Amino acid sequence: MTPPLPFRPVAWTPLGGVRALDQTRLPDEERWLDLDTLDGVADAIRSLRVRGAPLIGIVAAMGLAGEVARAARGGVAGAALRERLDAAAALLAATRPTAVNLRWALDRLLTRAAATPDNGLADALRAEAQAIWDEDLAMGAAIGAAGLDLVPDGALVLTHCNAGALATGGMGTALAPVYAARAAGRTVRVIADETRPLLQGSRLTAWELARAGIDVTVITDGMAASRLARGDVACVLVGADRVAANGDVANKIGTYGVALAARAAGVPFVVALPASTIDPATPNGAAIPIEERHAAEIAAAPGARVWNPAFDVTPASLVTAYLTDRGRIAPADWPAFVAALCGAPAPAATG
Amino acid sequence: MTPPLPFRPVAWTPLGGVRALDQTRLPDEERWLDLDTLDGVADAIRSLRVRGAPLIGIVAAMGLAGEVARAARGGVAGAALRERLDAAAALLAATRPTAVNLRWALDRLLTRAAATPDNGLADALRAEAQAIWDEDLAMGAAIGAAGLDLVPDGALVLTHCNAGALATGGMGTALAPVYAARAAGRTVRVIADETRPLLQGSRLTAWELARAGIDVTVITDGMAASRLARGDVACVLVGADRVAANGDVANKIGTYGVALAARAAGVPFVVALPASTIDPATPNGAAIPIEERHAAEIAAAPGARVWNPAFDVTPASLVTAYLTDRGRIAPADWPAFVAALCGAPAPAATG
Repeated sequence: MTPPLPFRPVAWTPLGGVRALDQTRLPDEERWLDLDTLDGVADAIRSLRVRGAPLIGIVAAMGLAGEVARAARGGVAGAALRERLDAAAALLAATRPTAVNLRWALDRLLTRAAATPDNGLADALRAEAQAIWDEDLAMGAAIGAAGLDLVPDGALVLTHCNAGALATGGMGTALAPVYAARAAGRTVRVIADETRPLLQGSRLTAWELARAGIDVTVITDGMAASRLARGDVACVLVGADRVAANGDVANKIGTYGVALAARAAGVPFVVALPASTIDPATPNGAAIPIEERHAAEIAAAPGARVWNPAFDVTPASLVTAYLTDRGRIAPADWPAFVAALCGAPAPAATG
Repeated sequence: MTPPLPFRPVAWTPLGGVRALDQTRLPDEERWLDLDTLDGVADAIRSLRVRGAPLIGIVAAMGLAGEVARAARGGVAGAALRERLDAAAALLAATRPTAVNLRWALDRLLTRAAATPDNGLADALRAEAQAIWDEDLAMGAAIGAAGLDLVPDGALVLTHCNAGALATGGMGTALAPVYAARAAGRTVRVIADETRPLLQGSRLTAWELARAGIDVTVITDGMAASRLARGDVACVLVGADRVAANGDVANKIGTYGVALAARAAGVPFVVALPASTIDPATPNGAAIPIEERHAAEIAAAPGARVWNPAFDVTPASLVTAYLTDRGRIAPADWPAFVAALCGAPAPAATG
């Protein structure tokens, strides 16, 4: 059989806008949105119909390029077209104020625009947006290659949250080695933590793996420790929201508990990340601010309080390997890797 | 202020039947059921309106006594009354076939009946059911006393699932030290894991603690590890469904992960149990059968499988102390404690 291609949650519309999968409808409905207005793109990001840091950046860039193309087709030109570009970029940047990739992608298009003559603006922005998407796919392919030998034929992999195709332009980070193994003709099975409170595992990871024909089993987050203790899981693969200079990993809440359970069971705990996720200015996990989300995401009895942090920090000492778009990095090599990325002296390694 | 009494989820009705709280309606509604028919009692147990192993035993015993009292008031006597008793006991025993306490409580009433003359049957059975309930309250009080010094004034306690008043006749097992500390005038705060998939923590533990005026905060199961890592939790208190001869603990799924996180954070991990929960015939946790429940309890994307074990096993090596109705037992003393209970030679201690 032909190995399945990873799933792509985004495309260009015939009008040059963004075609995106409405992730709030998953897994019940596969509904595609043709976002051919600026407000449509902004609303899709704001309402989490489009989610996942890399994907948000790609969609915002494509949406910005689409807006400029529509304006140019409508006869807007010169200074007026550049004003339209700046206003659209500002509107998109405000949809998710804390999303680093979103700002980065929009800034990249603005930089390209500044270096482009008026009459080439629309084409240049579309090309730049396409480049951002292409680089994301290459990033996933590189992470997949770096982790391929962690997923031998018949391997069982456990993952937490969704760091898959749906969070990126098409191959994911944590799931990239799974898709790479599948493309290499291997049989892979995945255990997906449901990932409370927002259920990205049971809704999104399970959906995209099942759609790719990969055997996936959903468990509640509290089952991960006893499942790992059975001794038949080849590795745990998770993504990262931010990695500190010392290798401490901020990721979706629940990741730290999975890392402890993996250590207890002797199962490799592997973190997949594009190098852009590394924050050399943050010395360690204690310095990473943890967003607390709305209490309403967790139902509790009347009179009870709720604590709802979005992320936790897994200490570098629990990480077996980092899979990056620049290869696989052993914990011992992490400080030098970070230093080489930044051209700064290597920080002291920590346990 | 007067320290709150623990909450009692059961009472006698004026007609000698069972008044029970409908736990399936919690936390949204505090609805009391007057169960004055045998079918009403059986259905309440079968449909999980009444749950928690000790409470099921108490309600079944009270329900059986009520059935015999109604029959006697209706003129049924002699052999016919005893036939009615046997049939009712068989019907109640079949409601939850694997519930050990249920069988044990019913057998205790049948034994009492066999030693009682016909004309004293109804009174004797009510007295025996009341004794089972009273002993449960005394068990809770003893566990509370055994754990009182683990909950100093201002203490923060983390618990998993519901091993509280709602699972017993009124004081709980894991929550007994919390109620005892509160009754001693101490301020206590509790963190309750929501306990997926059935949410006994966010629905039941949070409800009964809030009702008792105790500060309770609900978290998702995946948050326990990072919450414990903050270093301000005095102890983890959990119940047990079965404890093996070597001290391994079967309890609600997710308990093992909490135990690993407590160990990593240096927080005492304490198991509360009546001595009747110890199974000396089970040498260790590997010998404890783990019930797998229906996949429908966990929502997953179409095409995904579900794994849904009801319990996990925490190895004795992670337990800091056992709180029993016969006092607090250190892990090193566990083998001798079990041996003394059974009059058998002590099994070898394991790490």
